[in-house]
Amino acid sequence: MRRTSHADTHCSIARALDIVGDPWTLLVVREAFFGTRRFEDFRRALGIPRATLADRLDLLVDHGVLERRPYLEHPPRDEYVLTERGQDLQGVIIALMAWGDRWGGLPEPPVVLTELGSGRVLEPVLVDRTSGRPLAELSVRPVRRPRRDPAGPGPPR
Amino acid sequence: MRRTSHADTHCSIARALDIVGDPWTLLVVREAFFGTRRFEDFRRALGIPRATLADRLDLLVDHGVLERRPYLEHPPRDEYVLTERGQDLQGVIIALMAWGDRWGGLPEPPVVLTELGSGRVLEPVLVDRTSGRPLAELSVRPVRRPRRDPAGPGPPR
Repeated sequence: MRRTSHADTHCSIARALDIVGDPWTLLVVREAFFGTRRFEDFRRALGIPRATLADRLDLLVDHGVLERRPYLEHPPRDEYVLTERGQDLQGVIIALMAWGDRWGGLPEPPVVLTELGSGRVLEPVLVDRTSGRPLAELSVRPVRRPRRDPAGPGPPR
Repeated sequence: MRRTSHADTHCSIARALDIVGDPWTLLVVREAFFGTRRFEDFRRALGIPRATLADRLDLLVDHGVLERRPYLEHPPRDEYVLTERGQDLQGVIIALMAWGDRWGGLPEPPVVLTELGSGRVLEPVLVDRTSGRPLAELSVRPVRRPRRDPAGPGPPR
């Protein structure tokens, strides 16, 4: 399947979606967060066709979201581990989960987030770093900034 | 285009992706956050084909993310406004934006979030509501909960 590419778009959301804006891709990332590393485990957990899974793993490796690591030499076998860039998708996964928990029609959340060690259940909320106030309580206005030449500030045009 | 449906999956992320897990769909939602309401304005802002836009607006209305409101009788014209469910996607849009800002390869964020009124620039961060600590600093472990019958607790199986 060919999709429209937004890689040249001056928008961070479009660029993010260019990499992870496909349901299977984000479900593979979700599985990686759940600790899944091996092809067969991804396949079983997601019920995803082999060719689709191979394609999405390649895409995520190409974009530096997953890293391929050999874990067996004979026969050669790789596993897939989140890179720093991939770990940083945690916010996207959690935001989707929170929205799906609230609006997805399930009687209760199938997964809770806990703190490793204490086991305490965490309740993720998006706040403004400076004031600590939840963004949902603020009137947020997105403001587009003028596009600057990536080569640096030049003479006014 | 037919996509695999995850509507029956016991996972909030899969259910969320079933509605918004398509790049154009989330870009339409992004535009709605930016204040766009009318078909021609969505089309121009996104450079999206008419048929694709019509399809995604229908899908978002069907899933209760956008509400269709007539604004002109002759000729009949509708505009599209985020519902409460749609407004609640703010966290997903912001999470994607933050990730794209960080990893999308643009020299600086094209859009900043400000507080309406004060104009103060907001810095969104995902924290645990109880402790106020950023989730990125915690070791977060997702824990699957046992599936319960939606009809209510029954005898042990």
